[in-house]
Amino acid sequence: MLLNDEAYMKLALQMAESALGQTGINPVVGCVLVKEGRIVGMGAHLKRGHGHAEVLALQMAGEEAKGSTAYVTLEPCSHYGKTPPCSDRLIEAGVQRVVVATTDPNPLVAGTGIAKLRAHGLDVSVGVLGEESTKLNEAFNKFIVTRMPFVTMKTASTLDGRIASKTGDSKWITSPDSRGYVHTLRHQHQGILVGVQTVIADDPLLSTRGDLPAVQPVRIIADSLLRVPLGARVLTEQDCQPTILLASTQAPAERRAALEARGITVLTCGDGPQVDLTLAMQQLGEREIGSILLEGGGRLNGAMLERRLIDKLVLMFAPKIIGGAAAPVNIHFDGFAKMDDAITLDRMSVEQFGPDVCITGYPMYKS
Amino acid sequence: MLLNDEAYMKLALQMAESALGQTGINPVVGCVLVKEGRIVGMGAHLKRGHGHAEVLALQMAGEEAKGSTAYVTLEPCSHYGKTPPCSDRLIEAGVQRVVVATTDPNPLVAGTGIAKLRAHGLDVSVGVLGEESTKLNEAFNKFIVTRMPFVTMKTASTLDGRIASKTGDSKWITSPDSRGYVHTLRHQHQGILVGVQTVIADDPLLSTRGDLPAVQPVRIIADSLLRVPLGARVLTEQDCQPTILLASTQAPAERRAALEARGITVLTCGDGPQVDLTLAMQQLGEREIGSILLEGGGRLNGAMLERRLIDKLVLMFAPKIIGGAAAPVNIHFDGFAKMDDAITLDRMSVEQFGPDVCITGYPMYKS
Repeated sequence: MLLNDEAYMKLALQMAESALGQTGINPVVGCVLVKEGRIVGMGAHLKRGHGHAEVLALQMAGEEAKGSTAYVTLEPCSHYGKTPPCSDRLIEAGVQRVVVATTDPNPLVAGTGIAKLRAHGLDVSVGVLGEESTKLNEAFNKFIVTRMPFVTMKTASTLDGRIASKTGDSKWITSPDSRGYVHTLRHQHQGILVGVQTVIADDPLLSTRGDLPAVQPVRIIADSLLRVPLGARVLTEQDCQPTILLASTQAPAERRAALEARGITVLTCGDGPQVDLTLAMQQLGEREIGSILLEGGGRLNGAMLERRLIDKLVLMFAPKIIGGAAAPVNIHFDGFAKMDDAITLDRMSVEQFGPDVCITGYPMYKS
Repeated sequence: MLLNDEAYMKLALQMAESALGQTGINPVVGCVLVKEGRIVGMGAHLKRGHGHAEVLALQMAGEEAKGSTAYVTLEPCSHYGKTPPCSDRLIEAGVQRVVVATTDPNPLVAGTGIAKLRAHGLDVSVGVLGEESTKLNEAFNKFIVTRMPFVTMKTASTLDGRIASKTGDSKWITSPDSRGYVHTLRHQHQGILVGVQTVIADDPLLSTRGDLPAVQPVRIIADSLLRVPLGARVLTEQDCQPTILLASTQAPAERRAALEARGITVLTCGDGPQVDLTLAMQQLGEREIGSILLEGGGRLNGAMLERRLIDKLVLMFAPKIIGGAAAPVNIHFDGFAKMDDAITLDRMSVEQFGPDVCITGYPMYKS
């Protein structure tokens, strides 16, 4: 390790990254305080409403904060939210220099934190490992500006893009390693979204089940006509987060009443035969669900993609070929006429989980 | 580099690999002669009927071959083929030790070359980088035993497995880098196979066109009813290898006569409405086409896979999603009912060509 700004920022980013999934709609942030060649404090924001990274690091440093350099992965806040502004705290503690990975896109901050630090004579550097920090908070960055959840579509298919055989057999397509990664993804998202057909066919629990306990996502079912069986595990299992149903006004009123009587939240998303997915995302955003893992069947995946509601794609491919024109595909939608109009993946990366290939990228929609 | 058996064998393998595609049904072989710590000779088999690797290396070494160690990527032959046996030549030259990567599966050799060397008192080690050598000659290894061509299926699709949009637009799916790799694959296979529908739709030349001149494959068209247009470039362009048509007896006799009158080879492969692909491969094998690159549409690819005629898969995925249930898929066949019955890929590897992901593997067919 070279002792330079990047090295300390990298540590702060690692601390921030480790808290992904446990800060709700808040960003993950890490902070390292360095004085005279020694780390004197470190902190990470661990839970919404709890201490910010800078404050925790300042607490650890105590008197030693005076004259130190603070490495912060996100611009210190300048507004009174659930906690007092961090920029004030850094100034009061006598921090001399602040290195910031990236500015905070939150309209309530957006450069004002940095401006305040500079106005008080602190030396501020911005942009050290900025891309890494931006990526870490990609969900927060979208939500804080648009109030719409950041949606990651995850599919697990054969190499010929099938999520089941022509007879519906789907156990198992991907390997235990891949399924373990899916549980990490669930931990890192506030909500998990599937279609009612998945609930009817598989009766999944939609919980995070890895080797260790993890954060449970809110379970969201796109269920236009409220066909979910009352005995489905997403309704009866209480150890998980509550379940939210997305329905249309065409759903039977008595069915809705029965579900609500059991404490199930039913959101009304339009009048059509199918849920208005854009409206659904808006309503979920209003409920402070800032990130969603979409694990739909092909039609829900396709509909979300067509409406440009997908921000990130995680496509897992098992090294198998199942065949069958009737075998369901991972993404089903009307499609484009021209290859040039295809949705392309930006910033693609390729990983392997056991024998499976995982392709991650960000969809670029043509105008 | 460590001076050991592996290092010299690796050099011999690199020389052999560089000749892939130019030895016809012959294996690629490299040979390095080492004496008293110095390389005294090297050779590679470059063309069928021309010198074997050992002979070329012995020629370079001259008198220095005496007492040397020979590193050979494939067991020296022991039979009179188009050239005299290499094991005799090594013995006559006074080579002291022979390091062999792998035995020759050719029933005419199959251990007899090594036995002969040992019988004459030479010290023989077998198995140094054996797996690498076996992989290099995977096509030869199949053909020499079965007389059936080794078939590599190459597809280029979107991430949702489509080889064109629903309107048939397919230009371009993959990147120039990927298309360059395809031309390398063409160079490395003796034949290239497509369906007549591809010829009708795209009028391709089916030649190898990279930055440099390359070996041209024999062009093979699966054309059950001989529907190929007489003006198609695969029939009219003379700079390439000859074209072979695979037809059924159901093809019109006058059409066949017209094609044959133009010097086109038409192989009769069964009486059905579709070409009997197994019979077709047998006949191509009889014509000493030992390796074929299949660049079919989904149906030909699927039919070849169903008949277990595919030995290797090269699946290229562009980072695009085109959608459309009617958009043609890369592999189209009836499919399996159970996920456990899916064809799986053995020894899978993942590469990137520009923005595209290339998954290579060997199909494992369930019994």
